[in-house]
Parts: sequence; structure tokens; C-alpha cells
Amino acid sequence: MDERLQKQFAFLLEIDQEKNVFRQTHLSHHGRRENDAEHAWHMALMAYLLREYANEPVDIARVMLLCLLHDLVEIDAGDTYAYDPEGLKTQKAREEAAKQRIFSLLPADQAAELKAAFDEFEEGKTPEAKFAHAMDNLQPLLLNDSNAGGDWREHGVTADKVYARQSRTAQGSKALFAATEEILQKYIDNGTLPR
Amino acid sequence: MDERLQKQFAFLLEIDQEKNVFRQTHLSHHGRRENDAEHAWHMALMAYLLREYANEPVDIARVMLLCLLHDLVEIDAGDTYAYDPEGLKTQKAREEAAKQRIFSLLPADQAAELKAAFDEFEEGKTPEAKFAHAMDNLQPLLLNDSNAGGDWREHGVTADKVYARQSRTAQGSKALFAATEEILQKYIDNGTLPR
Repeated sequence: MDERLQKQFAFLLEIDQEKNVFRQTHLSHHGRRENDAEHAWHMALMAYLLREYANEPVDIARVMLLCLLHDLVEIDAGDTYAYDPEGLKTQKAREEAAKQRIFSLLPADQAAELKAAFDEFEEGKTPEAKFAHAMDNLQPLLLNDSNAGGDWREHGVTADKVYARQSRTAQGSKALFAATEEILQKYIDNGTLPR
Repeated sequence: MDERLQKQFAFLLEIDQEKNVFRQTHLSHHGRRENDAEHAWHMALMAYLLREYANEPVDIARVMLLCLLHDLVEIDAGDTYAYDPEGLKTQKAREEAAKQRIFSLLPADQAAELKAAFDEFEEGKTPEAKFAHAMDNLQPLLLNDSNAGGDWREHGVTADKVYARQSRTAQGSKALFAATEEILQKYIDNGTLPR
């Protein structure tokens, strides 16, 4: 086996660990907590099936790739809950160090390629990155909605914080943000999300 | 929310259950058993990073889609272990019924689109389906190799059975089948895979 393939296999084995990074979101039917690999898989299929709602035409292969790899840095950096202000302060630095270590397991050309894709997602400027971010918001929202908003209740999250996070969906898809608002309004009305 | 989006969301929530379909493969570091969603996520990233080894040029978006959806039918049909002769007898019928139920949750155009993609994978005739099948073989092989072949030992699998399964990889990638043979030879030589 040549060195290039050995490096590719080493990276592919390393990322197996993403399956042990658990998020705050619970699976539907009040199941266990979800892990990053499951979340990324779900986002990628969601992106494919909802691509008609993107604000701008998107290269769907690129969107799927961004969805699949956007959380790989959490193998080292851990999951940072969207409503954890302390964790959010150090998130960028932790994830930058992880990016360098993990992607550098690949041959240099692919390391550069994947770092660029990760940066594209983080910067959120391209139509593909904006739509991938919409999926990153919508995927846990659908699960949490199926669980009567239990994840928000567990963390005592307020409506304004959820709106601040979810409003980014509009940059990728105004149509899906309209659906998001419809879901959120239900939880504001029934008091699950206090104002 | 209009009926089309309601159907899309219903499907996207239904497939959350793939995260509870567990396979015989164990995660690296002798971890727990892997589930179908994790397996599919891993295959899709693997396909992207190893696409240079495909025998024929492939549409990588199509390969990734086939990887992501190829096990959705197991939500109803369950996982059939590659070396379970009894399960393999009824697998086709169970998966066909599941395909009809699960994909029909989608709007009719997308139901037809995903059923066709699933059939393409199953038939294994296009360059994309052949390469996706190579990933379906290679992904658990890398994990099992990282665990010193424990999954084969647990099930008492013989070398000829593993070869019969893994040899299909050559249809998608001769280069990756050469790497597969190198890995398998190690386990034949040390007696883990009896002839």
C-alpha cells in the first residue's frame, strides 16, 4: 500500500471517533442524545431533499460535503452547545487547533482541500455554506420539535436566544426560515420558550 | 407550511430511526457496535476522499447520495449481516416492502427519485453504484482491521466467504481491492480467517 493511500486510510480511521462526540440534541421518540456523525448524515440527506428551497442555486455535492465534514474538528474540540456562552468564547481557538491536526493526517493536497471546505462552512459566505448552515439549524429543530421542545426546556433556553441562532437559516433559505418561525411560534405560545 | 414541505419533514423525521439500526461491525478501539447512519456518513466521506481510485469517472454527488440512502430500508427490514445465509434469503423481499413504505412518505416526485437511486445502488451496474458498493465493503473492513479482525472471529467467518463478499470491490475500484487483499492476507496468514 503506497504512502498516499496509507495516509487516506489513517484519516478515515481517525474520523471514526466523530461517532463518539455527543450533542445536546436527543433523537426522536425521546431517545438518547445524538452524535455528530449521525447529525452530519442527517444534514446531508436533508440538504439534498430540501435543495429546492435554497435562496440561490447551490452545488449540491459541495453542500453535502460541507455538511458531512463540518463537525470533524469536534473530535478534538468537543461539541459546543449553541446556547453555552462560556464554551462559545473558546470554541474558535479549540476548533482551529483541531483542524490543523486532524486534516493534516491526509496527503497535503487533500488536507488543504478539506481545510478550505471547513473554512468555507465556518465563514458562511458562499450559497453552499449558507444552505449548509440552514441545515445545521433545521436538523436539531426537527428533532427537538418531535420531542415537544425538551432540549430547550432542559437548558432553560429563551425565545430570543433561539431566534438569534435560527435566524441565520434565512440567509440560506427564506422558505425554511418561514417554516422555522412557524415551529418556534408554537413553543413561544405554549410557554416552552419564554420571552 | 404547505403539504409538500410537510411530507418532506415527515420523511426527514422518519429516517431519524436509521440511527437505531445497529450493525455487526464495531467502532475502532473495540468500541460499541456501529449504526447504519454512522456507517452511511463514513462511507460518503470515504467515497469523496477516495474517488481518485474509482475504475471509471464517477459523479461524486451521486455516489455520496447512494451511500447516504442505501440502508434506509433497514429502518423496517433490519440489518442483515453479510455472512448470515438465512437472513440473506428473505432480505430482498423485506427491503422491497420497506422501500415502498418509507420513500412514499415523500412527495411523489421525490419518492420516485429516491426509489430509483436505491434501485441503482442495489442493481450495482452504474460506475457510481459500483463505487458505492466498494465503500460499503471497505468501510467495515477498515474498522474491523483496526480491531484485529474481531468481527470475523466473533462470527467464525472463513476466508472464502470474506473474499466472495469483498471481491465485489474490484468492480468499483481495482486499486482499493488490491489494498483489501493486502489487509485480508494478513488475517489469513495469522489464522484469524481460516481457509
